[in-house]
This record gives sequence, structure tokens and C-alpha cells, in this order.
Amino acid sequence: MPHLSHLFHCRRYHLKNFSTTTNTPVTRSPPYLPLSHPTFLIWAANTSLGKTLVSAGLAASFLLSESSSDPRKFLYLKPIQTGFPSGSDSSFVFRKLSHLSLRRQPHSPLVSSNHVLRASLPAANSVLGYGCGTSCERGMGNLGWYEERRVEGEGGSGAVSELVCKTLYAWREAVSPHLAAERESGVVEDAVVMDTLHKCLRLELEGDGDARKKMDVFCVVESAGGVASPGPSGSLQCDLYRPLRLPAILVGDGRLGGISGTISAYESLKLRGYDIAAVVFEDHGLVNEVPLLSYLRNRVPVLVLPPVPEDLSNDLMEWFEESRGVFDSLKEKMLSAYSERIKRLHGMPKKAGEVFWWPFTQHKLVPEGAVTVIDSRYGENFAVFKAHNNEFITQQFDACASWWTQGPDANLQTELARDMGYAAARFGHVMFPENVYEPALECAELLLEGVGKGWASRAYFSDNGSTAIEIALKMAFRKFSFDHGLLSDFQKDNMAGRGVELMVLALRGSYHGDTLGAMEAQAPSSYTGFLQQPWYTGRGLFLDPPTVYMRNSIWNLALPEGFRFKTSKLENIAFNSRDDIFHKRRDGSDLAEIYSSYISKQLSQYSGSGRFNHIGALILEPVIQGAGGMHMVDPLFQRVLANECRRKRIPVIFDEVFTGFWRLGKETAAELLCCAPDIACFGKLMTGGVIPLATTLATNAVFTSFLADSKQLLNP
Amino acid sequence: MPHLSHLFHCRRYHLKNFSTTTNTPVTRSPPYLPLSHPTFLIWAANTSLGKTLVSAGLAASFLLSESSSDPRKFLYLKPIQTGFPSGSDSSFVFRKLSHLSLRRQPHSPLVSSNHVLRASLPAANSVLGYGCGTSCERGMGNLGWYEERRVEGEGGSGAVSELVCKTLYAWREAVSPHLAAERESGVVEDAVVMDTLHKCLRLELEGDGDARKKMDVFCVVESAGGVASPGPSGSLQCDLYRPLRLPAILVGDGRLGGISGTISAYESLKLRGYDIAAVVFEDHGLVNEVPLLSYLRNRVPVLVLPPVPEDLSNDLMEWFEESRGVFDSLKEKMLSAYSERIKRLHGMPKKAGEVFWWPFTQHKLVPEGAVTVIDSRYGENFAVFKAHNNEFITQQFDACASWWTQGPDANLQTELARDMGYAAARFGHVMFPENVYEPALECAELLLEGVGKGWASRAYFSDNGSTAIEIALKMAFRKFSFDHGLLSDFQKDNMAGRGVELMVLALRGSYHGDTLGAMEAQAPSSYTGFLQQPWYTGRGLFLDPPTVYMRNSIWNLALPEGFRFKTSKLENIAFNSRDDIFHKRRDGSDLAEIYSSYISKQLSQYSGSGRFNHIGALILEPVIQGAGGMHMVDPLFQRVLANECRRKRIPVIFDEVFTGFWRLGKETAAELLCCAPDIACFGKLMTGGVIPLATTLATNAVFTSFLADSKQLLNP
Repeated sequence: MPHLSHLFHCRRYHLKNFSTTTNTPVTRSPPYLPLSHPTFLIWAANTSLGKTLVSAGLAASFLLSESSSDPRKFLYLKPIQTGFPSGSDSSFVFRKLSHLSLRRQPHSPLVSSNHVLRASLPAANSVLGYGCGTSCERGMGNLGWYEERRVEGEGGSGAVSELVCKTLYAWREAVSPHLAAERESGVVEDAVVMDTLHKCLRLELEGDGDARKKMDVFCVVESAGGVASPGPSGSLQCDLYRPLRLPAILVGDGRLGGISGTISAYESLKLRGYDIAAVVFEDHGLVNEVPLLSYLRNRVPVLVLPPVPEDLSNDLMEWFEESRGVFDSLKEKMLSAYSERIKRLHGMPKKAGEVFWWPFTQHKLVPEGAVTVIDSRYGENFAVFKAHNNEFITQQFDACASWWTQGPDANLQTELARDMGYAAARFGHVMFPENVYEPALECAELLLEGVGKGWASRAYFSDNGSTAIEIALKMAFRKFSFDHGLLSDFQKDNMAGRGVELMVLALRGSYHGDTLGAMEAQAPSSYTGFLQQPWYTGRGLFLDPPTVYMRNSIWNLALPEGFRFKTSKLENIAFNSRDDIFHKRRDGSDLAEIYSSYISKQLSQYSGSGRFNHIGALILEPVIQGAGGMHMVDPLFQRVLANECRRKRIPVIFDEVFTGFWRLGKETAAELLCCAPDIACFGKLMTGGVIPLATTLATNAVFTSFLADSKQLLNP
Repeated sequence: MPHLSHLFHCRRYHLKNFSTTTNTPVTRSPPYLPLSHPTFLIWAANTSLGKTLVSAGLAASFLLSESSSDPRKFLYLKPIQTGFPSGSDSSFVFRKLSHLSLRRQPHSPLVSSNHVLRASLPAANSVLGYGCGTSCERGMGNLGWYEERRVEGEGGSGAVSELVCKTLYAWREAVSPHLAAERESGVVEDAVVMDTLHKCLRLELEGDGDARKKMDVFCVVESAGGVASPGPSGSLQCDLYRPLRLPAILVGDGRLGGISGTISAYESLKLRGYDIAAVVFEDHGLVNEVPLLSYLRNRVPVLVLPPVPEDLSNDLMEWFEESRGVFDSLKEKMLSAYSERIKRLHGMPKKAGEVFWWPFTQHKLVPEGAVTVIDSRYGENFAVFKAHNNEFITQQFDACASWWTQGPDANLQTELARDMGYAAARFGHVMFPENVYEPALECAELLLEGVGKGWASRAYFSDNGSTAIEIALKMAFRKFSFDHGLLSDFQKDNMAGRGVELMVLALRGSYHGDTLGAMEAQAPSSYTGFLQQPWYTGRGLFLDPPTVYMRNSIWNLALPEGFRFKTSKLENIAFNSRDDIFHKRRDGSDLAEIYSSYISKQLSQYSGSGRFNHIGALILEPVIQGAGGMHMVDPLFQRVLANECRRKRIPVIFDEVFTGFWRLGKETAAELLCCAPDIACFGKLMTGGVIPLATTLATNAVFTSFLADSKQLLNP
């Protein structure tokens, strides 16, 4: 029997409590997760299923393995603890490891510590009166509650292994954290919990720089209760921890009913974008692993722990010995999941460069190092993998909302994911013509009561903005043909129309999408060159629009060449406020008159009867031209244009793919223009970017121009 | 105290058991759910949370309410019971209601019955020896185990209310049904359980026709264990019951950890497309309803039942009285959810006709009665609402797989829904250019190793087949320009190309999508008339293809006009088998030579140097022309065509949107043709129809023709 010595430390610190910390502003660093060492989040299907036993078992397997002679460090973090201090999971792990290390005699000396960072006032008071009846000393000081123990190993080499256990926030009552926090006036915001957690991870995983990096470190973060148990703020924990998206271990339920609870918990984690590396549960003789593996299609390992003695006085040492093989195997699976993930993350930019063909990209100008590896999204940020010196995941602001398509915050994102899962499970894919189903009907109704309110009566669905524009053009041309007596000729001979050229009236700088039909409705530009669009001809009359812009806090009007000679007549080409630009009183201004006569003159070339070239539609991006360069067109000009076209019975199309759904602060840009279209296209934000979906809304008059007694005229 | 009389019935039936029934073929009627009366499925977040108490409380509220004087019927169905007969939930409901009816003295006499249809042999034997110690008689007969009781009400009117309790399948061991079924050799297939259940529902809800329809009936079906507990076949119950998609009541968990379990169970139900009408749970003093309502955004009612006495000898009569208000309220919420659903289903065809603009549809030819209301999909069937005489939901075969876009079976549909929910939760929407993320990379890799194996090196993603075709055309034209020395001219002057017309070589009858660019690549047809496609010109050389067809079990070749004169030279214009049609040995046939010279002649018009019209791409639907009329083109002709084009360095595009992913029995139609393209488009089945996604795959040579040192040449 080798010589064993026990070293006891006792430092004097105050236990921090919420009566001060919640009132102190916290400096938050951006969420940042070191990936230099394996770090897992331990979840459970329910409370009391043995998360802490699993944590302790993993710590033992990692620190006390016979094969390991190099010093190692195991980090155990319990961000949220209730029932403190009588129940403290970090203290449990600390004590069990101390006992196990005495039994197993590791090669290196093991220093274990347990630290409680912050506790609610009642919990803190309890700690002050907490007896110290074991052989281990505990202390209180200005950095929190602390206990430490040292066990010398067999070899007695200089290198020391470490077990670091930390409880971040603790409350006294043994209830759900949201209740304990509320009752003990110790509510902590989600962002504060996450900030403390990631600072802790950085400190412990990266603190010593290269030395630490070379050391074998393993970290588990243990949640409280079940996967969807509320945290201290009331947010569900599976939502609270989402920004870091740590790989997960799910502690399942081996009892009767436990298959269901385990599968449901697994699905709640998947519905938040977590990856589950393994499921582990205590055996209750019901072979729950069989249906679980079948459900998981054997893609996620399921491990079974021996039954835990029910006798509360049992010190579990025998159980830990009996479970050793399972924990070793679990640890190995976690290590290999970690190393596979890191390998994959490192390899992704190269692979992307080999197999992707990105849109709008000259691949030769994108070196491997310039490729961004997006691990996930949380609200307005990407979680991005970086591999400078240390590997880590950090947050990067999505400044263009992923080309104006992303909208929802983190909570809505999860809700959308669930609702989308629901619709996909309920319907899979079902065809649309002559059918009706609830989500489509509800969506159409919401569109007509929302962005189409007051003018639209029909919703035509398609799958992207460009296609929605092509549909809008066909709608407009049919309406024009109907209104101008061309339709009856075409009906007699469907090829008769081939002598007729229907053109759009559009503004230079507009962009309506990338399919050929949408391209034809835009003016020649760098996007329409032969090399990009070999079939582009540009079937429109394209006008240069007046724009407004801000300089030195003043809004100015910029008139294109064609208007310059008339500016002497104009009084106001600057505006006091943005609201002035949109004000309806401008309709009576000289400028309105100039716009009107200019437009009339342009249109007059196409209004003669007997001509074969017609302006069959007006198409514009109301207020802002997006892809064309974020120009704000003078809304008065667009309003006058729409009114002139309406007078001549030319259907008006608004392309609101970019501007719709409150992107400009109003539900539609049409509302800003004070002018309703006959047809409008929406996309992007319509689904929060979650699936490709677009719609073309139309008035009843547009719709009825397609009605006929035969199928010949069916189709926009 | 009114006079009460008890009437006891005893009928002689045999209890059916699995030793015979599992070997007897079952005649299955198509899944069919009457909607004439409210029917709900009672689920629970875990086992032993009080589903049966809720069922009994609802039965009491419905049958014994003071306000109701009309006779009513409550149907309680327990499809799957383990621990039988000592534990029988239908017997529990039967007994509790008998006791409660004695206490509450209903207006109408109440006849209660309890019936066990089938039990496993050991359970059946136990029933045979089951004592009858209460005042109620029980019997065995050739229709199963049966007990009945009659309680006369206060009024004693002629009309009789009924409580009908039925256990459909029972096993002895008090374990999960899949284990009990296996151990007692009583496995029952899912389809058999569902068949028995829906026959039972029809019998009890529609049995008496109009009389029954007018009677107030309320039905609950109670599941076993938790939402994802396995049924007797091992399928999870939430999957097993999916074909009927009954509206759900979720019995939650009011204990510590119960918020999590309840939310996860709720999410598992949503992920199978269920609608949850209410959540109800037993109070344990933890106010779990607050976080639950917050999670549910108050959109689903949450009801709290008083604590259930723990003393097992308690007859619960006091508890049922105390819970009366909660059950009344739950019943009301269920009744109003039912009537709102029925109202909505009835109104949907009319609303659809008012707000939808369906594609490919002449609305005037679709009367309200012709609109199909799809309530959900299960595998290859729609669940369709019908309102002839009685309202009901029945299954309708989706014979065209929703325009060849739906593929997955019912299980895969749920898996896809979960995986889609995962990806949506993990990423929401993130932009693609210069980024990489796991699902996109994995998808690209799978495409290149699958449908692109052996030839493709790049995947370009878009959102529908039509857009994928436009991308393919741009790729092909660039490659052609690169190979034929046109590119350098265009680079010097991007407008130089405007004098050049790049055309496609395509087959008459092909269809490549509905956006203008895809339309331009198809021959004039009923789809391309001026009224449907005002901008269509048809930019191609369109050849009439030889086709093959089967008549009288023999495969024949049909040659178009242009070939007829040569048929005298041909030996085989019929084939012994389908395999013969595809056989490579046909490459050496006379027909191959005829094809080849015909194609050469056609192409020769476009091969002169200095000409401005070029055939810049071959585009074809390999093997089957889908939208064009399901014609099978002679594969030899397509192979010769592709080879001739390749000889002339004209890029070959395969439109596999319709044929790809095993739709024709091979992974791609290219495989059937024994011929690889330069570019190919895939869509539809790619996501099992669950989201719009398409891809254009290309060879490395096509990709590199876009590489340049400036952004000018970037973009297909």
C-alpha cells in the first residue's frame, strides 16, 4: 500500500450573493467558446435521473484511469444549483472524486477544488452556518465558498492533475430555479448566466495559454432538472444555453415510461439545434435501450449504467467501480465525437472550396482562408468557427440580415422551427391546385389582412421573389390585354400576340430577381451583360428616377439629367425631415407637376392605337432600390408614376420582396408611398427566411381578367 | 332521496386472445374517422400522471352534468392496456362513473358498460380466474369480457344515457406494451390496432345513423404511458396513432421536473403534426402552469386539477367533486375546439375559392364542391375531410405523389420533419456565398457521391427546378463560349455578345419549368402560347424524338415523320423486354447510324464558323418526358444525341428534376441511358418535397470556364 497524504487548503473569501450582484452592472464580453478541449453539456430527460453521477463517473474515468500518466484536468461546471447548500452537485462531484482517487491511486497527485461563485442571500446565509463535519476543510471569502483537497498518487511525479468543480449560481430552495430565484429575490438574466459561464470556460480552458492547451482537459457543464426546465429568468434551459450550442449528453430514463421521456427530451434538444453525442441511463431491467436505439436508428450511442443503490447511506464507491467500463466507453465516445467535430470544422473551408458553386461569387477571388464556417445562428449573430492559434467559436453580427432574408430573434427562431416541424410532420408535401389546407389558407388570409390590406384579394404562392415577379408580369400583361381589347384577338389565335410586344415601364437601378423574365424587366446594368445573362434583351422603357439622400443631416433631392433644366422652377429640393419627403402635400407641388408631365410625355410614345409596342405594366421597388445600390427614390415620383399609369390603365406592380413586412418601419413600402398597387410581390421575411416562399398578391380585377370558360386562359 | 334501481346484465362471451387472432387475416377497411362527434386522444407526458382520471372526469362532466337532460353517450376507448386485468383503465372509468352516477343522480338513466375485446393468452387466463367481488356482474363470452350496470336517474324518463368503455387489446404484464406483447407472444401490427380502433369509432359514433348523429356523443381515446412510449409492435404511440391525427389533450406533470417533461411531450406531439386542444395536470404546489402558459404564449389552455389523494384506498369521490369545475371547463374547451374545427373545415373550400390563386388552374372550372380539404398526409395518402351526410376524414391515395415531389413514407416524413426542425433551429437563415455550414456541405457531398457520381464536381443550389434549369443554361452557354473561342471577344466588350444568338438543342415535348428562361428552352406547345407566356420566343432547335411504348405487352418504337422513309432498313422496331431497349448493344445497330446521321445533319446548319447562331447547349429530360405527356423517348436516340453534341463540344444538360433520385428505379435516368451529362438539374424528391430546394450539378470543366481574375465573369 503506497503512502497517501491529504492536503487541506482553506482560503478566506466572502460568498457573493445576489443582493449586490444583481444591482451591479455586468461587463459582458461577446459569447465565445473555446474548442481547444472537449466540452459537453449534460442534460437529462427529467430531474433526479443521475446527471451528477454521470459527471462524476466521467471525471473519474478521465482523471483516475490506470492508463493515463500525464497530468490532466477535469472541469465540472454547474451554472445553476437549487437546494443549496444541502444539495450541491459540484460538492458531490468533488467529494466522490476525492474518495475515488483514494481508492484508485492515480499516477499523478490530484488536486480537487470546489468553488461556489454566487449564491442568493438565503442560500449564502445557510452556508455561513454550514457545519464542516468531514475531513475536508471549507472556507468563505471574498471570492465565494471554496473547498480543496489533495491526494498524492502512486508515482508521486511532479506533475499534478486537477479536478475543478464550480457552481456558478446557487439558490436555497429545492425547487425549479425560476421559482427559487423569484422567491429569494435572486433573478439572474440569461445573458449574465451565459457571460459568467463563458468567462469561466475561457479562464479554465485557455487561461494558461500554450501550457494549458497542451494539457489534457475535459469539461462538462451540467444543467439543472430536465432539458426544458426553466432557468432563473424563466427561460427554458434548452433555450438559455443555445448561444454556445455545446454538444450534448442526454441522461435518459430507464424506468417505465422512460422511453417516452427520453425520446421527447431528445426531440426538444434537436428542436433547438443541439447535437447529441450519446444517451446514457440507469438500468431498471426494462431494456429501454432497445426501443431507444431503434428510434435513433443506431446513429447515436446508447449506454446503460448499472442500477444505483437506493440506500441513501451508500457511498456509491462499489457502484462507481461497477460502472467504470460504461464511463470509460462514454468518455471515449465523447472524445471521438469531439475530435471528429474539430477535424470536420477545420476541413470545411477546403471542402467548401472543392464542392460548392456559390452564387454571385468569383471563386478565384475566394481563398480558403476567406471562407466563413458558420456553426449556427442565434438571433442576429452567426456563431462562427475560428482557428487562429486556439480553436474557438465566436459570434459575428449578420449585418445584412443574410441579404435581408433573416428576421426573427432567437426565441422566434425556435418557435418557427417547431411550427415548421409541425407542418412538415402533418403534411409532408401536398400539391396545391384545387386543394386547401390549413397553413396555406391561414397564410393567405394573413397576407390579405396584412400586407395586402385594402387592395389585394388573391394570393398566388411561389418559392422565391424572382418567380413571384415573373408571375406578377404575366398577371399585369393579361390585365392590360383585357383592359385594352387585345385579349379577344389573342383568344381567337393564340399566336396573334406574337406580333405584339408588351413592355414594362421600370426605373433604372431597380432589381427584380435573377430568372430571365425578372431580368428582362430591369434596365441594362452590370448584372445584365451577355456573360451573365446571355438571353437578356431588356424589354422595357427604363426611366432615370429622382432620388433623395442625406448629407450633413439634411435630406436632399437629386434629379437626373432629364429634369435638370427645370430645376429653376423648384422651391424645395431639400427637406426638413424624412417625414416631409413622404408627405402627401407634395402632391400639389411644382415638382409633382414636372414629374407628371415628364411621365406623360414618356408614355405618350406608347399610347397610340394600332401600335404593336405597348407598355403593359409598371414595375418598381417602392421607396428603396435594394440590390441596385440602396438608393431611396423620391416617393413623390413613384406616386405620380403609379397614378399616371393607373390613369392609362397600365397595371402597377410593386416589388416588395426587399421592403415588405416592416423592413422599412411600416408593414409595406406602399404604405410609405400612400399608394396601393394592383399587384405586389413579397418574399424573404415572409417566412423569417426559414423556407423559400414568396407570394404575388393581386386585386380582384386582375384575378377576374383570367377567368374564362376553358382552360386556355388559365395560367399566370 | 329518489328511488334508485340497479340493473345488472350478464352476457356470455368468450374473451378473444392473440393465440388465434394474430394468425387470422384481418380485413382492413381504409382508415376513416367520423367527425360527427367530438373525439380526442388523451396523451400524457409520462406514465401515471392521471390520464384515466381525466377520462373519468370528462365522462362525469359530460354524462352527469346537472344542466343536461337529453340523453347522451360517452365513449371511452383504451386501445392498448398492459397490467391487465388487475389494472384496467376502462374498468376504472366504468366503476368510477357508476359510483359518481349514484351520487350525482343524473336526469336520464345511465347504462354503463365495459368491454374487453382482445387480450393476450396469459391475460385472458387471468380473466377466467378473476373474482367478482363487487355488486356488479361480469361475464365472458364469444365477443369478449363484458360488464354492465344501469343507474336510474331522478326523472326516470324513457331516454337512456350511455357510458361505453372498451379496451381493445390487453396484456398481463405491467410493462411497456412492446415488452408485454413480445413476452406474451401477443404482438399486434400497427395497422391492426388502427383498424380495430377506427371500426370501433365508426360503430359507436355512426352506428345508428341519423339517430346517433342527433344524440350528443363525446369520445376519448386514451393512450398508454407517455406520448412516445412504444405500442405493441414497438412503434412509438405518437407515430402509431398518426393516421387519424385525433385532436389531443396532454396530461402534463405538475411535479418538480414536470415543466420540462410536459413541454418536451408537447413538442413530440407537434413534431407529429398533432393539434393540442388543452394541457391539464395535477397540482403539486409548484405553479407549473405559469411557465407552461408562458411557453405556450397563452395559445393553448392549461388547466390545473386539485392534488389526488395518495391513499390508495381512497375512492376519489371527494376528489372528483372537487375537480368538477376543472373538468367542466376542460370539457367546454374541448367542445369549442371541436366545433371550431368542424366549422373551419366546412368553410375551407369557400374561403380557398375566395383567397387562393392556384397555379395551372382555371378558377372558373373549379366549383366549391370540387375543392379537396386536406387535413394531413400520412405516407402515400392524404387525409381528406368530407362532408356528405356525416362529416368524416378518410384517406385518399396521392396517385401522382403530389406532382412527383412527395417521396418519403410516414416514418421518414416524421424524421424529415425533425431534421428540418433541427436545421431551422440551428441556423434559421444564413447566407451562402463564401460561407460553409454543415447541412449544405453534407448535402453537396451526398449529391456528388450520389446522383453526380463519376462526373460532377460542383453543386450549385437554388430553390426550384425551373431556376436550376436557368442556371444550367447559363453554365452551358459559358462553357460553349469558352470552348469555341467566343469568350475572349465578350470579355473585351460585354455587349459584343448581343450580336450572337446562343440556342439550345432540345426535344419536342420536353418541359423544363415555368420561368421564362426555362420556357425559352422548350418547343412551342400549349404551355407557351402568348396568353400564358407573353415573352416566349422559343430559342432552340427542337427535334421530334423517337419514342417507345408498350402495346399488348410488347415494347414498340414510334419514329416521327422525319425518320419514316428510312424504316425499311431497320430490323428491330419492337423489343422483347424493357431491358433490351436500354441495352448498349443497340449502339451498333442500323438505327443508331440513322439517328446519328440525322442529328449530324441537323447540327451542321449551326456549325459554320462566322455564323451568329450557335447551338450552345443540348437539354433533355432523360428517358421520360414528364409534363409533356409521360412519353418514353428512345434511350438510344438520347444517347446518340448526347454523344454527337459532345463530339461538337456542345455541353449536355440533363433535366433530372422529374427522374432523379430513384424515381425510375435507378438513382438517375442518366444511369439508364448509360451516358453522363456535363450539367444536370435535380429537385423535387431531393428534400422529399418538404422544402423547395434544387441543385445544378456540373463537371469541373464547366466550373473552370467561369474562373477569372475579376468579378466580371462570376455568375451563372
